[in-house]
Amino acid sequence: MAQHAERNITMVMDFYEMTMANGYFQNEEHPKRVVFDVFTRKNPDGGGYSIFAGLEQVIEYVENLHFSKEDVEYFRSLNQFPESFLTYLENFRFHGDLYAFPEGTIMYPNEPCITVVAPLIDAQLVETAILAQVNHQSLIATKTNRIVQAAQGRAVSDFGARRAHNMDAAVYGARAAYIGGAVGTATVLAGQQFGIPVSGTMAHSWVMYYGSEYTAFRKYAECYPDNTVLLLDTYDVLHSGVPNAIRTAKEVLEPMGKRLKGIRIDSGDLAYLSKRIRCMLDEAGLEDCKIIVSNSLDEYTISSILAQGGPIDSFGVGERLITSMSDPVFGAVYKISAVEQNGKFEPRMKISEVVEKITNPGRKQVYRIYDQKGEAVADMLADAEETVDFSKPYKFIDPEQPWKERSFEGFTAKPLQKLVMKDGKRCVELPSLKEIQQYVKYQLDKEIWPEEQRFDNPHRHYLDMTPGYYDMRMKLLDKLSNHKRGKI
Amino acid sequence: MAQHAERNITMVMDFYEMTMANGYFQNEEHPKRVVFDVFTRKNPDGGGYSIFAGLEQVIEYVENLHFSKEDVEYFRSLNQFPESFLTYLENFRFHGDLYAFPEGTIMYPNEPCITVVAPLIDAQLVETAILAQVNHQSLIATKTNRIVQAAQGRAVSDFGARRAHNMDAAVYGARAAYIGGAVGTATVLAGQQFGIPVSGTMAHSWVMYYGSEYTAFRKYAECYPDNTVLLLDTYDVLHSGVPNAIRTAKEVLEPMGKRLKGIRIDSGDLAYLSKRIRCMLDEAGLEDCKIIVSNSLDEYTISSILAQGGPIDSFGVGERLITSMSDPVFGAVYKISAVEQNGKFEPRMKISEVVEKITNPGRKQVYRIYDQKGEAVADMLADAEETVDFSKPYKFIDPEQPWKERSFEGFTAKPLQKLVMKDGKRCVELPSLKEIQQYVKYQLDKEIWPEEQRFDNPHRHYLDMTPGYYDMRMKLLDKLSNHKRGKI
Repeated sequence: MAQHAERNITMVMDFYEMTMANGYFQNEEHPKRVVFDVFTRKNPDGGGYSIFAGLEQVIEYVENLHFSKEDVEYFRSLNQFPESFLTYLENFRFHGDLYAFPEGTIMYPNEPCITVVAPLIDAQLVETAILAQVNHQSLIATKTNRIVQAAQGRAVSDFGARRAHNMDAAVYGARAAYIGGAVGTATVLAGQQFGIPVSGTMAHSWVMYYGSEYTAFRKYAECYPDNTVLLLDTYDVLHSGVPNAIRTAKEVLEPMGKRLKGIRIDSGDLAYLSKRIRCMLDEAGLEDCKIIVSNSLDEYTISSILAQGGPIDSFGVGERLITSMSDPVFGAVYKISAVEQNGKFEPRMKISEVVEKITNPGRKQVYRIYDQKGEAVADMLADAEETVDFSKPYKFIDPEQPWKERSFEGFTAKPLQKLVMKDGKRCVELPSLKEIQQYVKYQLDKEIWPEEQRFDNPHRHYLDMTPGYYDMRMKLLDKLSNHKRGKI
Repeated sequence: MAQHAERNITMVMDFYEMTMANGYFQNEEHPKRVVFDVFTRKNPDGGGYSIFAGLEQVIEYVENLHFSKEDVEYFRSLNQFPESFLTYLENFRFHGDLYAFPEGTIMYPNEPCITVVAPLIDAQLVETAILAQVNHQSLIATKTNRIVQAAQGRAVSDFGARRAHNMDAAVYGARAAYIGGAVGTATVLAGQQFGIPVSGTMAHSWVMYYGSEYTAFRKYAECYPDNTVLLLDTYDVLHSGVPNAIRTAKEVLEPMGKRLKGIRIDSGDLAYLSKRIRCMLDEAGLEDCKIIVSNSLDEYTISSILAQGGPIDSFGVGERLITSMSDPVFGAVYKISAVEQNGKFEPRMKISEVVEKITNPGRKQVYRIYDQKGEAVADMLADAEETVDFSKPYKFIDPEQPWKERSFEGFTAKPLQKLVMKDGKRCVELPSLKEIQQYVKYQLDKEIWPEEQRFDNPHRHYLDMTPGYYDMRMKLLDKLSNHKRGKI
C-alpha cells in the first residue's frame, strides 16, 4: 500500500493550523513562545478515570516533524501562501519543549497530560496529530482496562484488527490494549513492532476447507501438537465440536504424549456452552484443557457471563475493544493557556457559556496527593513556578466549594508532569511497553481508590487548586467576564 | 514517526492466518484454489443500505503483498514455523483473482462485495487487512452519507482528524467521507494524497493569542481578505463575536473592496445563535456572509437544527462522523464459500444456531434488478456460472417466502461483481475519487428507493435467489444439518 509506506505524518494536520501559521508568520509573531495544554473533559463510558497513552508516538512524531519538498509544493499549489512562508516551511523543525505525565498515568478530566511550550507556529502545527494519537491510544487503553477488570484475573487478548478503523487503529490499538492490561494480541504487526505476545490458532475456514471437522482437528493437532487449540462452533458445538475435540485429544495427541491445550467457541450462549463443554471435557479426563471464548464481548457481557458461572479461562475481545464501541470518542482537546510577554508567560483563558468548557489558564503543574497509606486522595493544580510545601498542613481550594476551609495534613504530593523534550529533542529515557503496563496495574492496585474503579457511578476524583493558582484564575475570569464589546 | 513511514502492511494480519498457512503448507494443500467472500450482516445505524468503500486501497495492498527479510526473521524468532515454510514466505506473492462491486456501490447485507478466488494460503493471508480497510471506509462513507442527507443540500465538511482512531482513520476516513458526499476535509494529508478540497481558517487559539478579539479578526482579514471566515465563540458570540466581525467587515474589508465571506460558531445552541447572527449580519448589510457551524454534529442534531429554522450554510462535522460514533463497528466478515475439487468449485457453508450467521455457499454473482423506471427493486444471488435471461418473465425465489410463485417481468438485471485483479495484478482502470462520489449520488438520486433512505425503519431491500442457486443452497443446508457426530 504505497500511501502507507511513503506517507508523511507531518501533514496530518488541520488546514487551519497552516492558515494561522502563515498569519503569524506574516505578522512576525512566530518567534513568541506560547503554552498549549492537552486535556480531557470527561472519562469514557462514565468511568472514574482514564489511562494516558500514546506518549512515545507523540515524541517520535514531534522529533521527526518536517515538510518534504512535495509537501511544500502541495501548499504552493493551493495559491494561498506567499513564497516567504513556503521557504520558512522548507527549513522548519520543531523547537519547543514538551512536558508530560509518564505514559500509563491514571488521569482525570481537566489535567494537562501534555503541555507544549514552544514558538507559536511550532506549538500550533502539532495540535491534530498529538490529539489523534493521545485520543486514540488513551481511549483503547482505558476501554481495555475496563474489560480486563471485568475478567477478574482471566486473560484478555485483543482480537480486534479486522474491525479497527484502518491499519493504525489495529496496530496502535493493540499497543494501547496491552497498556490497559491485555495479555496479548492477534495482530502480527503489533507483535513485531512492539514485542507484544501474539496468539492465534484457526478460523472457521480451516474446518470448512477440510469439510470434515475431525479431519480438520486431526491435521491441526498433528501440525501443532504442543499448542493445539480447536475451534468448536463451525457446525454444532455440543454434538460435533466437543466430541471431535475429545477424539482428537485421545486419538492424535495422547499417543504422542501430548495434551489438548484448549478449545475456543465464537458464537452461541457462551455461559451455557462453556458450562456444558467444561463437564464434557472433564468427564473425558481433559481437566487441563482451557476454554477460550470470543464474540462481541465487552466489560458488561464478560461480567454477566462470569456472574452466571461460565468456567472460562480466557477472553478474545474484538470489535467492542478496538473501537471502544460503547463510547468511541475520547475528547481530549488542545488549548492555549499562556503567551510570552516581556520574557514571562501571561495566562490565557477561554470562557464559555458551558461551564465545563472554561479552560485552566497559565503554565501549570499537577500534583497527585497521597495519604499515609499511599492512596491517591486527590489531585491539585498549581502554577508551574509555585513551591508546594507539604511538610506542614497545606491549605488548598476545592474550586467547586471554595468557601470551605480545607487542608492536607501528613500527606505527600507528587508532581505528575515531567520535561520529556527539550528544544525538539527527547531528554528522558522512555519506559518499555511492559513497564508501562506494570505502571498502570500498580496504580490501580495500590494507589487509586476502588470506589473510582466501579463501572457505575464511580467516585469522582477531586481536582483541587493551590490558593495562589485559584486566585489567579478567578481574577482572570472576572476580567474576561467583564469584557464588553470592543473593550478587548 | 518512524513506524508509520517504514511499516509493512503485509504484517497487518491475525496470527491465525499464519498458523493456518503453515498447516496448509505442511499438508501440501496450498496450491488448491478456494473462494472467500467479503460481506456484511447489517447496515450501520439501522439504516437501509451501506456504501461499499475502500476497494482502491485493497487492490494496492494485495498488489504489494510480500514479506520482507525482517518479517520472515520475526516469524523465525517465534520458533513455531519450520524453515521450509519460512523460505516459502520469502518468495510469496499473491496469485489470485479479485472480483468486486465498483467502489461506491450501494450494498446490502449478505452480498459479496468482494470475492477472492486464490490459492489457499494467498486467500487466507489477506483476510484481516481487507476487512479492516473495507469495514473502516464503508462505515465512514455510509455515516457521512446519512449526515449529508440530513443537511439537505447544505455543505458538509469533515473536521474529524483529532478524534479519529489514529492517523489512517483520519486520512482514509476523509477519503470515505468524500465518497459519502462531504464537500471537503480539514485534514491536509487527505487533501494532498487524494485531491480532496481542504478548508480551514482559525482556531480559538488565534483569538486567545491576540487577547483582543477585534485585533485577532483584523489581523486575519488583513492576511486573507478574499477568504475571511471568523470564529465568533471565544468569548461571547452575540455581545462580542458578531459585533467584532461586523466591525472587521466595515473597517478592514470594505475599504479594500472585499466582503466578509463567513463566520463560524463552535459551541452553544446552534439553532438559536445562527438565527440571531443571521439577523445581525443582515441588518449590517452582510447578507452574503455565510454561517458555518460545528460542535458534536451528526444526522440527528443537523435535522433538528434545520427543523428549527437555523439559517446555516455549511456544517463542519467532526467526532461523530470520523468515528461513526452512534455505531462504530462495520461488521463485514470474510468467509470461505467454495473449495476446488477436481477442477471445479465445491460449495462450502457455515451453519450456525443463529440464522443470520448461516453463509451463502459457492461462487456467486449478485444481480441488481431494475424496473422500467430504472429503480432498483431488488438484488438477486445467482451461481456465478449461471446464465440469467431476463428477456422473458423470470421466476425467482424469495428465500424467506420460498413457497410464493414470483417473477420479474420487463425488468433488467445488472451484474454487480466485476473482475478487478487477475493473478495478483489489477486488470481494470479504477475510477477517480470524484467519480466514485458522483456514482454514489447517482444511485441514491436515481436508482435507490427513497423508502430505503429513511433513517427510521427503512424499507428492506430484498435479496432474492435464482431457482438454481436456491436449490443448491437448500441441498447443502440439508446435508450439513443432518450431519451427525463423527459422520463428517
